[in-house]
Amino acid sequence: MKVHLDCFPCFLRQSIISLRLGTKDEALQKRILKNILPEIQNADLSRPPAYATTFIHRKIRQLLGRDPFKEIKSEYNKVALGLYPSLKSIVEKSPDPLWTGARLAIAGNVIDFGIFTSIDIEGAINRALNNPLAVNDYSTFKDVVSKVSRILYLVDNAGEIVFDRLLIEALVSAGKKVIVAVKGSPVINDATAEDALEIGLSEVCEIIDNGSDAVGTILKWTSSPFQEAFRESQLVISKGQGNFETLTGCEKKIFFLFQSKCDVVSKELGLSIGSMLLKKS
Amino acid sequence: MKVHLDCFPCFLRQSIISLRLGTKDEALQKRILKNILPEIQNADLSRPPAYATTFIHRKIRQLLGRDPFKEIKSEYNKVALGLYPSLKSIVEKSPDPLWTGARLAIAGNVIDFGIFTSIDIEGAINRALNNPLAVNDYSTFKDVVSKVSRILYLVDNAGEIVFDRLLIEALVSAGKKVIVAVKGSPVINDATAEDALEIGLSEVCEIIDNGSDAVGTILKWTSSPFQEAFRESQLVISKGQGNFETLTGCEKKIFFLFQSKCDVVSKELGLSIGSMLLKKS
Repeated sequence: MKVHLDCFPCFLRQSIISLRLGTKDEALQKRILKNILPEIQNADLSRPPAYATTFIHRKIRQLLGRDPFKEIKSEYNKVALGLYPSLKSIVEKSPDPLWTGARLAIAGNVIDFGIFTSIDIEGAINRALNNPLAVNDYSTFKDVVSKVSRILYLVDNAGEIVFDRLLIEALVSAGKKVIVAVKGSPVINDATAEDALEIGLSEVCEIIDNGSDAVGTILKWTSSPFQEAFRESQLVISKGQGNFETLTGCEKKIFFLFQSKCDVVSKELGLSIGSMLLKKS
Repeated sequence: MKVHLDCFPCFLRQSIISLRLGTKDEALQKRILKNILPEIQNADLSRPPAYATTFIHRKIRQLLGRDPFKEIKSEYNKVALGLYPSLKSIVEKSPDPLWTGARLAIAGNVIDFGIFTSIDIEGAINRALNNPLAVNDYSTFKDVVSKVSRILYLVDNAGEIVFDRLLIEALVSAGKKVIVAVKGSPVINDATAEDALEIGLSEVCEIIDNGSDAVGTILKWTSSPFQEAFRESQLVISKGQGNFETLTGCEKKIFFLFQSKCDVVSKELGLSIGSMLLKKS
């Protein structure tokens, strides 16, 4: 997919979210936002929007002199960790832990941990768990999982990775070797090695980083070890819209678990915004 | 008021509306949108957003080689003209034609003629007529009107000017000399002399143009004859948010009739978005 006309204002909306997290100095916010504009002007419109947003958020971190999402990611992890015991019991009671784990992983992509308190988040999880998937390739997913031994799992956001942990545990229990790939360095609220450690994911499976600060997974910008892991995996589980944007069309067996969070991607998929997907490549 | 952080994405959203009206060539739309970015970068943040949008829409017209709103303005005038007889009868039956005329003029600012068919527009008018004004300085307005003889009326959009005509007719019936000021040349869907002619406003009162293609009324960019008319008027009736943005704080007796159409202006006023106002300066 390519940069759409409607991506342009969205680039700025996303930048504003970062800037408001990064500083309370309104003059600095405006100065940095102005400095984002040349990045948008130089955007390669023949590539997915994730390319442009990678440059934009790199610039924001550089001009702020810090990662604006550092504190909030840690908060999201804590909120999600508080839910882990009850989520774990949902999976344990399930007749099909792989299905329940996959649904929870998608629910994790649906929930905005920033807007929920622990009181109303359970309702949000139930809605995310019970609403139908707009694209549901679960039977193929289950079949492929049963046949492979080595799975690369590309996580998306902090907080959400607690939900991923449940699917990963279901895969590990089924005897699969799972390698989780996090971002090489901070970009928006994407999970890094620090987040994986924070939620105890390293106790469950191997963690590698992709050596990149790109939004989604831009393969050519990832490290050689990550590329090798990608090549050697028999199956890739890909979380989030950014990974879908950047990996769709790639010659690899990938299952994309995500919610379509913007009009542009939703239209491209022929779905309404907010649709949940478990979609094979 | 000054350019707010949230104005930046809105500049692009407004540009996209213009570009989609102006051309179906998506590559050209993107090329022009990229060319808007330096205009935003050069925006003087100490001034109202109308300054920046003036430069932006000038650039869009220049790069498109045409006024993208030309046809749609004419359509809006026709839709509104179709309503004129029934609106006129509402005013004629009213115990206070000035109040009903003022409410209709505000309703005209609320209604988006682009989204309504003649079937549902009457419901929209009724809602706009019956919902309370968030700021209601009508009693002062009525009092001031009774004391002045010479009124300058700054219109806003095509279509809406049919609604303005009803208030203007009420003022003229009350013996007032009303001069209507339209834009000097096209800018977004603002009414120009052509629109005033199209809806027969020249049969009701004197029409002048402000010699400017600015969003709102940026006094220093208007023509000398307009500035003279502005100076000499005893009362200014100002329609629309753009005129409010650019004229608020001005040393003149002005009544602003408009709907707050964006978060930034609404917050500045301490009102919720979509509020209707009849507000004295």
